[in-house]
Amino acid sequence: MAGDDQRALQYEQTLMYGRYTQELGAYAKEEAARLREEGVRRPSVKERSRSLELLEYDRGRCAKCRICTVRCQKFLISRVGEDWIFLILLGLLMALVSWVVDFAIAICLQAQKWMYGGLESNVFLQYLAWVTYPVVLITFSAGFTQILAPQAVGSGIPEMKTILRGVVLKEYLTFKTFVAKVIGLTCALGSGMPLGKEGPFVHIASLCAALLSKFMSLFGGIYEEPSLIGNKNESRNIEMLAAACAVGVGCCFAAPIGGVLFSIEVTSTFFAVRNYWRGFFAATFSAFIFRVLAVWNRDEETITALFKTRFRLDFPFDLQELPAFAVIGIASGFGGALFVYLNRLIVQFIRKQKTINKFLMKKRLLYPALVTLLVSTLTFPPGFGQFMAGKLTQKESLVTLLDNRTWAKQGIAEGFDYIGNSQAWNHPQVNVFVTLVLFIVMKFWMSALATTIPVPCGAFMPVFVIGAAFGRLVGESMAAWFPDGIHSDGTIYPIVPGGYAVVGAAALSGAVTHTVSTAVIVFELTGQISHILPVMIAVILANAVAQSLQPSLYDSIIRIKKLPYLPELGWGHHEKYNIRVEDIMIRDVMYITLNCCYRDLHDVLLAGHLKTLALLESSESMILLGSIERAQLQALLSLQLGRPRRLEYLRDRATAEMKRLSMISHPGSEDGSQRVNQEVRFQISTEESSFSSTPTPSMKPLKPALKRPSVVDRPPDIHMPTSPQDHSGNTLKNLFCVNPETEGLEDDFDVDDDMTIREIAEWEENQLDEQVNFDNCKIDPAPFQLVERTSLHKTHTIFSLLGLDHAYVTSIGRLIGVVSLKELRKAIEGSVAVKGVKVRPPLSSFRDSGTSGTSSSNSENEATELHKLWDRHKSMSLPREHLASDSDEKSQ
Amino acid sequence: MAGDDQRALQYEQTLMYGRYTQELGAYAKEEAARLREEGVRRPSVKERSRSLELLEYDRGRCAKCRICTVRCQKFLISRVGEDWIFLILLGLLMALVSWVVDFAIAICLQAQKWMYGGLESNVFLQYLAWVTYPVVLITFSAGFTQILAPQAVGSGIPEMKTILRGVVLKEYLTFKTFVAKVIGLTCALGSGMPLGKEGPFVHIASLCAALLSKFMSLFGGIYEEPSLIGNKNESRNIEMLAAACAVGVGCCFAAPIGGVLFSIEVTSTFFAVRNYWRGFFAATFSAFIFRVLAVWNRDEETITALFKTRFRLDFPFDLQELPAFAVIGIASGFGGALFVYLNRLIVQFIRKQKTINKFLMKKRLLYPALVTLLVSTLTFPPGFGQFMAGKLTQKESLVTLLDNRTWAKQGIAEGFDYIGNSQAWNHPQVNVFVTLVLFIVMKFWMSALATTIPVPCGAFMPVFVIGAAFGRLVGESMAAWFPDGIHSDGTIYPIVPGGYAVVGAAALSGAVTHTVSTAVIVFELTGQISHILPVMIAVILANAVAQSLQPSLYDSIIRIKKLPYLPELGWGHHEKYNIRVEDIMIRDVMYITLNCCYRDLHDVLLAGHLKTLALLESSESMILLGSIERAQLQALLSLQLGRPRRLEYLRDRATAEMKRLSMISHPGSEDGSQRVNQEVRFQISTEESSFSSTPTPSMKPLKPALKRPSVVDRPPDIHMPTSPQDHSGNTLKNLFCVNPETEGLEDDFDVDDDMTIREIAEWEENQLDEQVNFDNCKIDPAPFQLVERTSLHKTHTIFSLLGLDHAYVTSIGRLIGVVSLKELRKAIEGSVAVKGVKVRPPLSSFRDSGTSGTSSSNSENEATELHKLWDRHKSMSLPREHLASDSDEKSQ
Repeated sequence: MAGDDQRALQYEQTLMYGRYTQELGAYAKEEAARLREEGVRRPSVKERSRSLELLEYDRGRCAKCRICTVRCQKFLISRVGEDWIFLILLGLLMALVSWVVDFAIAICLQAQKWMYGGLESNVFLQYLAWVTYPVVLITFSAGFTQILAPQAVGSGIPEMKTILRGVVLKEYLTFKTFVAKVIGLTCALGSGMPLGKEGPFVHIASLCAALLSKFMSLFGGIYEEPSLIGNKNESRNIEMLAAACAVGVGCCFAAPIGGVLFSIEVTSTFFAVRNYWRGFFAATFSAFIFRVLAVWNRDEETITALFKTRFRLDFPFDLQELPAFAVIGIASGFGGALFVYLNRLIVQFIRKQKTINKFLMKKRLLYPALVTLLVSTLTFPPGFGQFMAGKLTQKESLVTLLDNRTWAKQGIAEGFDYIGNSQAWNHPQVNVFVTLVLFIVMKFWMSALATTIPVPCGAFMPVFVIGAAFGRLVGESMAAWFPDGIHSDGTIYPIVPGGYAVVGAAALSGAVTHTVSTAVIVFELTGQISHILPVMIAVILANAVAQSLQPSLYDSIIRIKKLPYLPELGWGHHEKYNIRVEDIMIRDVMYITLNCCYRDLHDVLLAGHLKTLALLESSESMILLGSIERAQLQALLSLQLGRPRRLEYLRDRATAEMKRLSMISHPGSEDGSQRVNQEVRFQISTEESSFSSTPTPSMKPLKPALKRPSVVDRPPDIHMPTSPQDHSGNTLKNLFCVNPETEGLEDDFDVDDDMTIREIAEWEENQLDEQVNFDNCKIDPAPFQLVERTSLHKTHTIFSLLGLDHAYVTSIGRLIGVVSLKELRKAIEGSVAVKGVKVRPPLSSFRDSGTSGTSSSNSENEATELHKLWDRHKSMSLPREHLASDSDEKSQ
Repeated sequence: MAGDDQRALQYEQTLMYGRYTQELGAYAKEEAARLREEGVRRPSVKERSRSLELLEYDRGRCAKCRICTVRCQKFLISRVGEDWIFLILLGLLMALVSWVVDFAIAICLQAQKWMYGGLESNVFLQYLAWVTYPVVLITFSAGFTQILAPQAVGSGIPEMKTILRGVVLKEYLTFKTFVAKVIGLTCALGSGMPLGKEGPFVHIASLCAALLSKFMSLFGGIYEEPSLIGNKNESRNIEMLAAACAVGVGCCFAAPIGGVLFSIEVTSTFFAVRNYWRGFFAATFSAFIFRVLAVWNRDEETITALFKTRFRLDFPFDLQELPAFAVIGIASGFGGALFVYLNRLIVQFIRKQKTINKFLMKKRLLYPALVTLLVSTLTFPPGFGQFMAGKLTQKESLVTLLDNRTWAKQGIAEGFDYIGNSQAWNHPQVNVFVTLVLFIVMKFWMSALATTIPVPCGAFMPVFVIGAAFGRLVGESMAAWFPDGIHSDGTIYPIVPGGYAVVGAAALSGAVTHTVSTAVIVFELTGQISHILPVMIAVILANAVAQSLQPSLYDSIIRIKKLPYLPELGWGHHEKYNIRVEDIMIRDVMYITLNCCYRDLHDVLLAGHLKTLALLESSESMILLGSIERAQLQALLSLQLGRPRRLEYLRDRATAEMKRLSMISHPGSEDGSQRVNQEVRFQISTEESSFSSTPTPSMKPLKPALKRPSVVDRPPDIHMPTSPQDHSGNTLKNLFCVNPETEGLEDDFDVDDDMTIREIAEWEENQLDEQVNFDNCKIDPAPFQLVERTSLHKTHTIFSLLGLDHAYVTSIGRLIGVVSLKELRKAIEGSVAVKGVKVRPPLSSFRDSGTSGTSSSNSENEATELHKLWDRHKSMSLPREHLASDSDEKSQ
């Protein structure tokens, strides 16, 4: 038993070395995966060797042949682990998903059109059909995602950005989320609402990659030894997720290059160039398959761009048109910032209006239904929709907007006939300019509103279409202004409004997402690169304007959702060089020393909730030896105060008592002591609370009080590490996770041991005075260190580069402070000063009362609760001088 | 005086904090820049305020107006520092440079053609003119660069890659190098040799950025306070250089997106996405201006692509053609690897053949001339050149190769007539296939050979053209095979060989440079993106093949030149996860302890030449407190042993002597002691060398021996930091830099002090036993630390991310080892196993004997020399137990 423990411990230590930034949840998850996979692996290896042996003995006809087959199979299985096979599979899978989703969406949209067309006799029925259909679909989508996996709501890019930074968001990469996202997205887009599929596809691709990785680990290959190689899977997973993001964009638009670049810009802070090929490889393969499927389905004759344009090549634009393109860029910049602002404003408005919020909380599907009703009513083609081409789906609008013909021929539509869908833009009473303006304005707020609906949806495509419409508007105006083109030489080159639409689309989507690579996406989408310079100029101008006004849509959502992400340093981040770490660091560092006692440990654990704590040589020398995870310390403490140890103590005491009893026979007074519990406890508390300032409303002994009183079905968000000592692991579980089976047993008193509450408190007090034994503790011997004079800029770089959570500030080996992500974020935001983003996650009130929530909020709750309870205990125990204030004095 | 020192010291300390990876040279350079700029700044500020004051008092008519002007001017000047203005200026400048260089090259090439055409009557004269012209130009280019700035030789991308990693290569970013590079490149390309301008343009753009930055610092703005803001300029310069690399490629090909991506792939390991916009902005502006210049020059009607193609848009290629594209990709992969190998082989061959090498060393312009003669003879159009379109320049070849018409119409050139330059491919006797094959084969080795010429030149463009020719060959073969296209349906879509040429160009250049972004460059160069999928597939396949066979051309050059760069981890780097830091670290760490004496310091300095040394608490505890730069320790040591202190000691002794003499008058024995120097010294050495094993051939006292005996004109490569103590700074200079003025004075004996060599040695021995005072030493309190179990993969990532030079390996605060770039490189190369790259830099023998060399080789020489001399001294002193062996035992 002891030997086993020892081995387990060594193993753990081996694993733990070199983990700098790993979070608790991630570790627990990996550990669980390791254990599970060990369970899976062992029999399979045994089985295989057994079958080989059997074959060796089998002297039948084709024994050799069979052996050969088995060997080949083994070889193939080992190959399965290669990156490129994984990437091909991922690309293939995503292409299929993308194509199927597109197909389903097309059918949904066709069904609506068919319904609408079939009821042409009765306008009211027509309206009912037109409106009911999307409301039902959106409501279903919202309800389905809500029930199956609320994590599937929204774009997914902000979450992927956070995950790629190294933060583990639980439940974001599970099969349930995958199903919810795919089906929810299909329904949401099938409703014809102004929503996009690009953001969700990034999430779906990441889900695919995570699931594929899990699936392939069943086959073995390099997936077989996750525990032996330690860091491998961690970094490999990040690499694969980055590639998956590229695949997501790539197969959504059949734009491999743009996909890779967009995903890099949107999800990464620092990009490892060695991962470049992964993204390109997978995205190209995916885009290829996606387009090949279209060819096989006879939609296309050969592989071409998704929204192919046919602008003239010889003279794509005149140099003198460039100012118009620049205007589009600048206006798009303002428009993009406005979109982000509007989107956030809507979320904020709903949050602030408490009556609305309360009402929506009760009927959580009402909001999506109402929004859908509003939007679809306004786009009803015989109604207001006729003035804004409401009949067209998003795709059709885009195709018509990118058309290479000019719509407005000097006011009168003389020779030009609107073919097919372009007809929608040509209203008999209203000018094409009015139609375009109405389209832009209405779609603008509709898109901003629609993207707040809690369904899987993106905002890229709607914004792209709005941008195209705006570009078209400018282009048509230019064409009307210069009917024969600007060029003054012999040949007449008329202005191509479609080119303006391309520029506008790239500029507005670039402004909203703060990316430059929308330019590349546009080239790949249209299959023409002739407008490269206007597009680049417009996109850069749009970015310049938008970035100076608002955060990107994804950063805005990150802030709204309060995801643990570090904001970027702004464009003009010169003043950041003047801020030093010493200006922002917390001098009041929580630390423990090598020779501290459990009471210090417990005080330190109460005082803050940093994930790791500094281990110093002594509080005099302040020399930093390393850092210890909070959970490790909690394990140590719970081991010291836990029931097993108490039971042991009781056993010892009982033995002593027995001995004593065997000498003097005397009846016990257990019943009486249990009865006076309340009084005695209160007495103690008043006695000791004279030292503390806060009143103690509810007095419970330390351990039972740690239990959360009222949560019935907590989601399995918090994973505790499998602690080296099995018994302490159990105790830890008791400390944090409410086990429904044991909850009933230990209600208010510890019925299963023989101590009174007072005795327990006393015993705990004694235990706390013992010195801590760090021997079995996993210590990270090289936590990241900065010096006081490190600039904010450098700190930001290092934090983003290494995905740090916190760093210690030292001066010649002596700890003088600590900087965590929070301080850094505060310091950056303090100067960047983006207002009005500190709101709650969209419709989070729905989730708080729901069955499952996000891990971050829960763990926060838990921490607060723990804190409160510890505080109560603290007021019971003797007040001690705060260690941290010590260190503060020293560091100053 | 003391107060001044104190202030200087504090200032220095303020500056030093937080410098982790800064190299000595960089620091010295910055320091020098700071001092210089401080000198510049102060008067200008004073002047400005004075002029304002004057104006305030001046009550003339337009005083207010003038004040306003001055204020506006000030405002504008402060704006000048903004990044975007810098980037615009950089883009503008580079566009102009690119255009002017192109223009000059075009004139040069036209002149050759004109000469060739004018001498049509006499073939011999024609040959002479054809051959002499490039030989003269190349020889001039080689000679010019050699004389002005040998750093301008070659591509420049490997050097930029190294510089962007944080290594300071001296003289690579000076005005001289700029001039040499621009003029050398123009001449080299004007000769018509198969050389490219892309690599050099990356270097030129970086030079431009560095010079522009320097130039703008004269105006003030944010450039004004480099010293106050510390790290700012360092990181800003790196950011700007990264943007400059993008501009270089962007303005060379008018390909902004491709330029940014290519420069990222080629120069970065980890790319900061926040720098993305800089590259895009500057490259777009640059490409725009570059193309606008062409429009203004009436070369073009409007802005279009550089090598515009006119492939059909509706059916660019058939799905069934994809295997042919894949074949191009795979073959290009092998071709690319072969090119890199061939290029390296040629360099190696010249190196190994000692007779050739010796001969070339004497006549250093002979090699370029010979190579040029060979190449231009073979391309002589009436000679062999007629079979390989030798008449065409590189640009013309490319234009014809990308032509959208098919050359081979079933053997007989029936209806098709070769228009213009395409004529060159249509030899009357020889098939077009033979011409293409000859072109490919000949150009292949010619390009590999030509790029070894020591002139500023790149290999991208020649490779690009060869790739296009190869693609064309495949395309023409396909067209001959399927004259009516592969498509079986109604319409006939003939095969477009030009599309194959595009694919081939991208694939081969991608294979040679190991980049995927050549695909984007190709789209931007041709202005058509219709072949995106074939291009992407071919480029990825080519990369896959080439990367598994050879390093990229730039990495190959880096290894040939032995630049301090960390090789990439290979594609299939799975085994890297199994190597731990403990397997590769040096356990025998050089360290100093807080309580060590100067002798330990000096022993440690002798034992290795790491740039920084670990400072431990004590050799028992081994707790790492920080690291100290070698130069700091040298300064401490030289302060202790230096002449000022000796003189002080002499003064003290003299005072004492005087006192003694004043009591007892007695004649001195100085002359005698000087005469017996040799004997006495020898006696000491034999006496003490009985403890040491090595014989001591030449005995000189410590300090004078430190001087380098024979170097007359050393380049100012080694910059010593301005030490806090002025006097120690001087001593340090004496220790390392041979000052021609003082050299004559102190020849073998210290003539200006009154000590004999023996006395000096004794005095030094005494001094060495004193304890070191680290008070005035700049200590980096947080050097980068790893733990034993950190994987090689993670170590590599951290080293590349942070640009580290070395990292300490600690275990709970205790130092157990050190890993430097060298060990890491060895560990990676040990498994990657690229053979035959450890050769000397191309024609480095020329440089060694020249007036100036690269800093790295010189500092190495110096270190070795210092080492030797110290060794001699060591053998004189008492042998002491080696400290490092101590640590080794402890760590095991």
